[in-house]
Amino acid sequence: MSEFRERFLQASRAANSLVCVGLDFDPRLVPSTYDGTSDAIFAFNRAIIDATRDLVCAYKPNLAFYEALGLNGIEALKRTVDYVPDDVLVIGDAKRGDIGNSARFYAQAAFEVFGFDAVTVSPYMGADSLDPFLSYGDRGVFILCRTSNPGSGDLQDMKLADSDGAPPRPLYEIVAEKAIQWNIKGNCGLVVGATYPEQLARVRAIAGDLPILIPGVGAQAGDLDLAVRNGVDRNGELAVVSSSRQIIYASRSDDFASAARRATLALRDAINRARQRV
Amino acid sequence: MSEFRERFLQASRAANSLVCVGLDFDPRLVPSTYDGTSDAIFAFNRAIIDATRDLVCAYKPNLAFYEALGLNGIEALKRTVDYVPDDVLVIGDAKRGDIGNSARFYAQAAFEVFGFDAVTVSPYMGADSLDPFLSYGDRGVFILCRTSNPGSGDLQDMKLADSDGAPPRPLYEIVAEKAIQWNIKGNCGLVVGATYPEQLARVRAIAGDLPILIPGVGAQAGDLDLAVRNGVDRNGELAVVSSSRQIIYASRSDDFASAARRATLALRDAINRARQRV
Repeated sequence: MSEFRERFLQASRAANSLVCVGLDFDPRLVPSTYDGTSDAIFAFNRAIIDATRDLVCAYKPNLAFYEALGLNGIEALKRTVDYVPDDVLVIGDAKRGDIGNSARFYAQAAFEVFGFDAVTVSPYMGADSLDPFLSYGDRGVFILCRTSNPGSGDLQDMKLADSDGAPPRPLYEIVAEKAIQWNIKGNCGLVVGATYPEQLARVRAIAGDLPILIPGVGAQAGDLDLAVRNGVDRNGELAVVSSSRQIIYASRSDDFASAARRATLALRDAINRARQRV
Repeated sequence: MSEFRERFLQASRAANSLVCVGLDFDPRLVPSTYDGTSDAIFAFNRAIIDATRDLVCAYKPNLAFYEALGLNGIEALKRTVDYVPDDVLVIGDAKRGDIGNSARFYAQAAFEVFGFDAVTVSPYMGADSLDPFLSYGDRGVFILCRTSNPGSGDLQDMKLADSDGAPPRPLYEIVAEKAIQWNIKGNCGLVVGATYPEQLARVRAIAGDLPILIPGVGAQAGDLDLAVRNGVDRNGELAVVSSSRQIIYASRSDDFASAARRATLALRDAINRARQRV
């Protein structure tokens, strides 16, 4: 078993949790005492982490929120990653992808500068755009497959002609198959939105025991029970269910951390109930 | 005519140039006096800009190189964008794309924090992942279409089954067609590598008068003459040819700026000769 998959399983088993908390700092949604300074952004994230760290297998900061805050945001993101306990994974939600020479620098930024345990990437540019990420065997690489947003089908559902006469299949299924080929170091995963539970089931059927990152519960309103049952592997594992706004903005007042803990507990338990029905 | 297209045409006409210099700061390739401090990174870029600003229509920093340098890199990137004269465009080569809520923050980072005039984005997540970028009507949005790297065909060349019995067409052509639909504010462009001149001709035929960003000359060894003739519009305009390593690392010694100027001049003139043969 690869080192990344091992770490993934250890993290989720230790907490008995498939929950990933999305650390998407939005200055309009946090209590007003948390302004845009690096200290304030980090303090908010630290409070969320302190309140939830025993209930989750991963945190997932989306880099968009930190880039929008400029240098303060980038600095706070780095401090946040450093603060997460070693037995909890940090997935950098970056959705990167570039020609090989540039992708090497993105991989270096993700894994060496920020120190993420895993990263999300876009498959549009092909295998050589992902190789620099995949070459870090101890780090996870979650490839966008069928994303949670309303427009995800614009390209991902397009039907591809099969040269040998088989029925056309959607692009996202082809991406799931390619992920199997690209999984040489055993560190590939896929991203499939909870908002598309049928597609999630198809990806799980194709992807075997690849980890699947499942965003789109909570604010994006995917069906949690169905997403969990369709997303986990045959042992009820190897899925990580990510929620951001529903947890970290469960309260927008000073009790946000305790409200985040309650929301995380509720999500963990709901997921675990669904896992028992697999 | 939209404001971005107007700015694009003004910039290229003012310099009589379709050249874009890629500002991809790589600490292993610059003279050793330019270490990884913000001052040094900015000083290198400033020297390149000073030496080439009258010969180009745009600069294109790829964010990968700056993220890999941590906070120093991000700070130097911001200073570099601020330093570029107003009549020259700065294209942030970011290849971003995310669900709508996150994409809004990426767009804010690109256009408000860094102040790019244009940005590159990935179409894999669909229209709603690009809308937040496209909503800035005065900024350009170059959508990855047929990229310059060897593996670009992995997804982009996949043939889509056509429901009405027409011959299957590759995904990149569909993306070019969608860009026309998405071009409501007249600020869409496309990215097509010089390494694929036939595909570039097909995209130009589909895309009409959309600007096309053409990387992949120089280090990636695309056929410049063919790329220019296939990439420009009927007036020999609306293409921007990007070269990075061939220009900024034309010399790796202290004469790098004057060597960059010579390389830029040679590229500009070769492009202009090709334009006259359209």
